[in-house]
Amino acid sequence: MKKAIILLGCPESPSQTPMAIYVTNELKKKGYKVTVSSTPSAMKLLEVSDPESFYIDEKMDIESCLESIQEGSFDLMVGFVHRDAAVSYFVTFENILNIPSIALISERELEVIEEFTKMIKESTNAEIVSARAYHNPTPLRVKFDKALKNMEKKNVLP
Amino acid sequence: MKKAIILLGCPESPSQTPMAIYVTNELKKKGYKVTVSSTPSAMKLLEVSDPESFYIDEKMDIESCLESIQEGSFDLMVGFVHRDAAVSYFVTFENILNIPSIALISERELEVIEEFTKMIKESTNAEIVSARAYHNPTPLRVKFDKALKNMEKKNVLP
Repeated sequence: MKKAIILLGCPESPSQTPMAIYVTNELKKKGYKVTVSSTPSAMKLLEVSDPESFYIDEKMDIESCLESIQEGSFDLMVGFVHRDAAVSYFVTFENILNIPSIALISERELEVIEEFTKMIKESTNAEIVSARAYHNPTPLRVKFDKALKNMEKKNVLP
Repeated sequence: MKKAIILLGCPESPSQTPMAIYVTNELKKKGYKVTVSSTPSAMKLLEVSDPESFYIDEKMDIESCLESIQEGSFDLMVGFVHRDAAVSYFVTFENILNIPSIALISERELEVIEEFTKMIKESTNAEIVSARAYHNPTPLRVKFDKALKNMEKKNVLP
């Protein structure tokens, strides 16, 4: 079975947890076994957000996960990037795993988005999806759907 | 069937949407038919957060809802209070419905929590649950569970 990993950093933005559920659900519909790897605070929000575990099957602490992975441990990575720390996680995981990946960058400030985009472009081969979204998840959701479709068309998706 | 209404204001806090799902699920387990009444932005987050509608059955725009309700339209109300506008909605709904209610107040600043608590105490008969929570939903979740249990014990719950 194809395996996907979703990275969640510090849940600063109100749309991160909802979008994490959405992305998990989309990838499961495409036949992926999905592991969500997150900081402890992001994990607490996920648990409250899916109390009956209808959406989230596998969860892992992001630090323990980092210690256990190697090239090819997963087939696809999607990472949420709201802060510097999340950029570091994304770049580190991408470099170790060396698999197709999508960075979801959302921030209030255009400058910060541009900075994060630059940092990730310089150090990874990730598809980058960015939106000046904070409260409203729709721009990021629509662009994520499009990115996934494009990767399918180009046969980049495992 | 007993009917509960959950009020959601502007989703400033990352824990509002996850907690809204949690509260809906808890009330459904207690036999309530739950309607979530929210601002448009809060509703978008809810939809992304529960893409297969496993948790949320009924949704309503908070303004249309306000126009359609009257005393006794619901049996229990739970309202999230993060901002001034949410205080106004809570007080208005409570005064029209005149039913047992719980206000969930969470904010980063203790002063703001105290101000919101005072405003709601002065104008309603609501149980007040408050926590200095922003990223971490646990304090608010634990206090909500306790409040619900207390209301059951005191036979206040319909």
